Amino acid sequence: MGSDTRTRHVYAATAVETATAALVGAGAGASPARLQAEHLVEAELRGHPSHGLRRIPTLAGRMRAGLLRADARPEITWRADAALVVDGNLGFGPVVAYSAIDELLERSMRTGVAVAALHRTHHLGMLAPYVERIGRAGCIGLVFSSTEGLVHPWGGVGPLVGTNPIGAVVPSPAGDLILDMSTGAVSAGKILDFAERGMPLPSGWAVDAHGASTIDADAATRGAISPFGGPKGFALGLTLGAIVGALTGTAYGPEVRGTLDDTHEVSKGDVIAAIRIEAFGQPAGSPELAAYLDLIRASGRDGGRVFVPGDRSREARARTVQSGFDVIDDVWTAVTELAETADSARAEAGHSA
Amino acid sequence: MGSDTRTRHVYAATAVETATAALVGAGAGASPARLQAEHLVEAELRGHPSHGLRRIPTLAGRMRAGLLRADARPEITWRADAALVVDGNLGFGPVVAYSAIDELLERSMRTGVAVAALHRTHHLGMLAPYVERIGRAGCIGLVFSSTEGLVHPWGGVGPLVGTNPIGAVVPSPAGDLILDMSTGAVSAGKILDFAERGMPLPSGWAVDAHGASTIDADAATRGAISPFGGPKGFALGLTLGAIVGALTGTAYGPEVRGTLDDTHEVSKGDVIAAIRIEAFGQPAGSPELAAYLDLIRASGRDGGRVFVPGDRSREARARTVQSGFDVIDDVWTAVTELAETADSARAEAGHSA
Repeated sequence: MGSDTRTRHVYAATAVETATAALVGAGAGASPARLQAEHLVEAELRGHPSHGLRRIPTLAGRMRAGLLRADARPEITWRADAALVVDGNLGFGPVVAYSAIDELLERSMRTGVAVAALHRTHHLGMLAPYVERIGRAGCIGLVFSSTEGLVHPWGGVGPLVGTNPIGAVVPSPAGDLILDMSTGAVSAGKILDFAERGMPLPSGWAVDAHGASTIDADAATRGAISPFGGPKGFALGLTLGAIVGALTGTAYGPEVRGTLDDTHEVSKGDVIAAIRIEAFGQPAGSPELAAYLDLIRASGRDGGRVFVPGDRSREARARTVQSGFDVIDDVWTAVTELAETADSARAEAGHSA
Repeated sequence: MGSDTRTRHVYAATAVETATAALVGAGAGASPARLQAEHLVEAELRGHPSHGLRRIPTLAGRMRAGLLRADARPEITWRADAALVVDGNLGFGPVVAYSAIDELLERSMRTGVAVAALHRTHHLGMLAPYVERIGRAGCIGLVFSSTEGLVHPWGGVGPLVGTNPIGAVVPSPAGDLILDMSTGAVSAGKILDFAERGMPLPSGWAVDAHGASTIDADAATRGAISPFGGPKGFALGLTLGAIVGALTGTAYGPEVRGTLDDTHEVSKGDVIAAIRIEAFGQPAGSPELAAYLDLIRASGRDGGRVFVPGDRSREARARTVQSGFDVIDDVWTAVTELAETADSARAEAGHSA
């Protein structure tokens, strides 16, 4: 996709239909394809195209390679009252994760707290929609995922730590607080963009192959992304990846595969927690929290505005869900071509019937 | 304490005895006083004197003001199978927290996961020792605490967000991974130190009263500490504080009191989670995690070493537990004076008996 940034305007309904057809064309059943497609379009609606439609060719490639089994049903096992083990059976991330979340929310009615550990599950993608569902049920939600090693240890050399993201929700009457962030200073995709455009990187984003800080985007692609926030961000990202690996039995750092390639079985993991606020005798969504978040929003310098985590995405979505969004031409072409393959395959199946 | 940094050398056993006597002198029973004293000395042993003996005068002041009831017993209520509510009854942080942890560890044998929400509990202090106990029991541990508002929102003005620390443990055979960090760029104490010495701050540590980045330490004391890691660190710290407030019913940001003063009832909260790894069918402390952490340790630039979270504290403690540590004279004098008060009080009680 790179430096070709011609775009076209797409509406949400069209995007979901076309993305669903593309995944069906690659072999998925209609229902899991639609759930995966909706999740990708959610990322577009919120202004995070890195987790949007451009993921479809890799998902399709993984299906064709037999690495992603779109119609698999996850195996869900309560190994203790509040401990859920989920074998995704190589299914789509959203299909497996929403199944796990439904189980957690039901169980937490009795136990107050429940945690799921997911393995053999594809990329969850944007984490916000998952924690939003948990928040709507009156729970605090946490999601930790491990990812491919892309980030260097603080003071160290090589892409040994995942960008290991964290998602969280705290329900609040005037708009839930929704955290969804990676622990890298920047995404790998952004560094590739800079490299393809021949532009220097902002300092602090990356190191070269010797671990030296660099603004040379080409050198950065052979080096590693820096953690956000220096040693503390490194410590946090490493810890999140270790928690995921320990609870799911999945791989660590440089051994993680299957989100970005279409050649290796998926070896990352995810941990999802639901904590029912009322089980602790507190209201889910207190006026005190709402007032506090409004105080934060109103604290901007020079009359400016401070965004509480989740605000930007909520506002972007409110716009784009009506008015649509822009997609890079190359991405849209790839998705529609996959969708057309599906149509011809269906037509052929019709003829032969 | 400020710019007078004359120090004296103290051994751990002496420090614990003297600190215990000081707290007994202020009215605490011997057993809670010792637990609190040991926790403070642990911070000294690990090279974190900000959470060490210098906290004793405030604790003593709070006891004398009737705000801290050292001999209170926490009220511990399982409101759901995995949801523990703890009213600390204004007791010492370590006394309440270790009681809660004992309950969580036992309960997690059956449920796999258990979470405690603590209110009316004094400063937990350094978080590492708590998560270490959870890790030794074969669990992943998480501790979130809210603190006084000291940090500005990203793009905003005023100390509206706590330094809200996070503690975590992931057990590993060759040394547990132990995270213990605040979400501020630096501690308030360090900025006071720079102000008293008239030294400029490193950039990125703080803003002035108008929210403008400053290296003027005096201006910073009237402004706010910056979050670590820019907008992501702000988002994380705000989220942690919101989780704590929502689950414990305690105060948010600028309403939080009782850790640093001896005038207000404590209004911060703490959340502690124990997640039993074997409940998820995984070994507690896998060789794969140990190998991964060793890979990280060996990844340093130019043959240097990378520290996995917990390494530095473990090494510092291994030295100081034998050889002792340095304490600022003024701190030691304050503690010994409190201890001597206790001795005279005891002597007097003996005479009158």
